Amino acid sequence: MVDSSAVPERSKQEQEAPPAEVFLKAFPLKDKSEIDRVKDDVKNNTIVILKITPLARKNVEELKDAVEQLTVFATSLGGDIARLGEERIIITPPRVRIWRGERAVDT
Amino acid sequence: MVDSSAVPERSKQEQEAPPAEVFLKAFPLKDKSEIDRVKDDVKNNTIVILKITPLARKNVEELKDAVEQLTVFATSLGGDIARLGEERIIITPPRVRIWRGERAVDT
Repeated sequence: MVDSSAVPERSKQEQEAPPAEVFLKAFPLKDKSEIDRVKDDVKNNTIVILKITPLARKNVEELKDAVEQLTVFATSLGGDIARLGEERIIITPPRVRIWRGERAVDT
Repeated sequence: MVDSSAVPERSKQEQEAPPAEVFLKAFPLKDKSEIDRVKDDVKNNTIVILKITPLARKNVEELKDAVEQLTVFATSLGGDIARLGEERIIITPPRVRIWRGERAVDT
């Protein structure tokens, strides 16, 4: 154990903290072709919060297909997927679990 | 190494995957008193997506104060905080970084 009593609280924390392991991105899904980008992000340990309304307005069938693809993808990767309200879905990489408790759905 | 050739794909994955390290919860903020629960969650390595509209409708001053408190809290803990659209904020524990790129804001 190192004596770090002289180090201010904030920098102590920064020194000891391991580097960021998970990123979180939020962006809109405007076209089905953007699905690959979402998959790449999740593979790279990024939580993606996807606003699905732009694609919903454009083409509901394409949106359904996209969500189905992302569900298969997240499940096979060992991640998770869930709706957030009426306008968004969340896709998580492995080791990030979406909590489904009594107040998990906030719509 | 255990021979797991008879185990179906999904449960093989579950056995091999390391335990979940980060949780993600989404719930509404209805009262300022619920702030402590949010802080506890974030301290316990949970990303909280907070729907702030219920408190906004009830008392804007209390909401401002709550967001200010959570900003100080997240910053001092080494986590992160950001808006998600018009209705939500995200608070993250250390090691979860909110990406602020060209499409980070999806409002």
